[in-house]
Amino acid sequence: MRLNFCAFLVASGAAMLTGSLTAAADDPLPSWNETATKQSIVAFVEKVTQPGSPDFVPADERVATFDNDGTLWSEQPYYFQLAFALDRVKAMAPDHPEWNTKQPFQGVLEGDLKAVMAGGKKSLIEIVAATHAGMTADEFEQIVTEWISTAKHPQTGRLYKEMVYQPMLELLAYLRANDFKTFIVSGGGIEFMRPWTEATYGIPPEQVVGSSIQSRYEVRDGKPVIVRLPEIDFIDDKEGKPIGIHTHIGRRPIFAAGNSDGDWAMLQYTTIGRSPSFGLIVHHTDADREWAYDRESHIGQLDKALDDAEQKGWTVVDMKQDWKVIYPAK
Amino acid sequence: MRLNFCAFLVASGAAMLTGSLTAAADDPLPSWNETATKQSIVAFVEKVTQPGSPDFVPADERVATFDNDGTLWSEQPYYFQLAFALDRVKAMAPDHPEWNTKQPFQGVLEGDLKAVMAGGKKSLIEIVAATHAGMTADEFEQIVTEWISTAKHPQTGRLYKEMVYQPMLELLAYLRANDFKTFIVSGGGIEFMRPWTEATYGIPPEQVVGSSIQSRYEVRDGKPVIVRLPEIDFIDDKEGKPIGIHTHIGRRPIFAAGNSDGDWAMLQYTTIGRSPSFGLIVHHTDADREWAYDRESHIGQLDKALDDAEQKGWTVVDMKQDWKVIYPAK
Repeated sequence: MRLNFCAFLVASGAAMLTGSLTAAADDPLPSWNETATKQSIVAFVEKVTQPGSPDFVPADERVATFDNDGTLWSEQPYYFQLAFALDRVKAMAPDHPEWNTKQPFQGVLEGDLKAVMAGGKKSLIEIVAATHAGMTADEFEQIVTEWISTAKHPQTGRLYKEMVYQPMLELLAYLRANDFKTFIVSGGGIEFMRPWTEATYGIPPEQVVGSSIQSRYEVRDGKPVIVRLPEIDFIDDKEGKPIGIHTHIGRRPIFAAGNSDGDWAMLQYTTIGRSPSFGLIVHHTDADREWAYDRESHIGQLDKALDDAEQKGWTVVDMKQDWKVIYPAK
Repeated sequence: MRLNFCAFLVASGAAMLTGSLTAAADDPLPSWNETATKQSIVAFVEKVTQPGSPDFVPADERVATFDNDGTLWSEQPYYFQLAFALDRVKAMAPDHPEWNTKQPFQGVLEGDLKAVMAGGKKSLIEIVAATHAGMTADEFEQIVTEWISTAKHPQTGRLYKEMVYQPMLELLAYLRANDFKTFIVSGGGIEFMRPWTEATYGIPPEQVVGSSIQSRYEVRDGKPVIVRLPEIDFIDDKEGKPIGIHTHIGRRPIFAAGNSDGDWAMLQYTTIGRSPSFGLIVHHTDADREWAYDRESHIGQLDKALDDAEQKGWTVVDMKQDWKVIYPAK
């Protein structure tokens, strides 16, 4: 009797354990509400991974590409890489007394962003050149690593790297659990992302595609270094995204996620005339928990891609309706 | 007694099986002779993968880069990609009657390579532009796939893709079995290699780095295409190799293999001031089974890197002494 009782305990314990594991395994996207959006994602993954399915895709062709700004992490009130650049101007200012009276640097130092923006694209390029070039790749990696580990968003008080979307982290993990290879394909700087994407998203440096500046190989004091030069090499945005994918990955994705018209060409390249395939657009609709913006926004403008989504068969995430939470619990 | 006898048979059978499996597992490089070269490779892999070793390297940092021409497959009497280009000129000639009287094409069609080479680099660029550009990426992939599946080397009668080095195939597999990520970093065309490197070397397209021409994204007849343009984009040779590695991989390798001075910078970038690390040079010393060449060769010149190998601690493979076989059994 005692043995039987033990057996009962063990059996029911095992059943409970199995039950809870099964529940978790049954829901790989726990932060997604049970809406059509989630259902369409799961249906796609199941059909391309089901051996014998007419839509089966071999594991090595399961390439998934994700925009970063506004798709994996927030991008308001301006791209976080610009916040990094502005912080760098302030940190470097003691070595550049001339910046106190020279735009766009003076505007940055005085907190007068309007003065900075008045210089348009030329000013931004000057700021990027001053803050992103002129050092070695190792030095820049160190600078980014320190910033991303400490810098906080002024409105949320969170570290920028904590302003990643919990539902998208689950989506990345879900795809990888189904033998997808996940890539970032972002207009952001490739070397600005690489130092932290592996820890944050589970995406290693070699699977990050982004915009780049030119660089030169040289030997300094007997040590090989990559020197970052103040010249644009490649802009990984709009029609540049399919080129970036082609150059770095060499395969057409079967899954692409973006949030703006800058992702339109990537979504098109991934999905048009290619089946099975999946296009996902993150639509920022949640002014309470994040930000709400689309057609009129200067950052992450979503207009043409939103118009085209239905006809192209792209799935639009309504952040407010589809996501239970925005950011990971702290 | 009978049962015991059976047990003995089973036990000794199992022992035999274990023995043979152990022998295979004990020798991951069966086509390498038991020389210092093989021992140094194995010693390196063991020390970087041994948890607790002072030289332990986490799996995600185990990046290994391989040159292709002369390192993974043969390259004589000229780069196999040139053989491809010459074959393409012949195949395309019916659509280009003007080539019959126009160098360097006339020389190709008449089998007069001296006339082709008389035009130097300019002629080669003309041939590459005519044969590698002007079509979509998908079309070019199809052309390469057909050629690599059928084209044979005039001297060996083997398919070019069968002229890969069996010992290097084993080395690639051995590294991957020890959680290295293996990359090609070649002066050859990236899109010339990608269609066949996965089947041949186990290296997927996204882990191939090479020289490239420019390309443009466009939509043709409603279908997104990448169009190949007759302009050089990037030359992945010499000082370009560390840049190619930095751009595509974003990590410094801990293992690099090459065979010529074109790999000198990659070997330097991988090994100098970085420990643990491993540099390997394939020295073509076997005129009977392959080719013997180094300092004076126009293809795969190995001069400076050979001089420097000892001082830099690079391991030099003596093909004749170190390799039991050159090519895979047919």
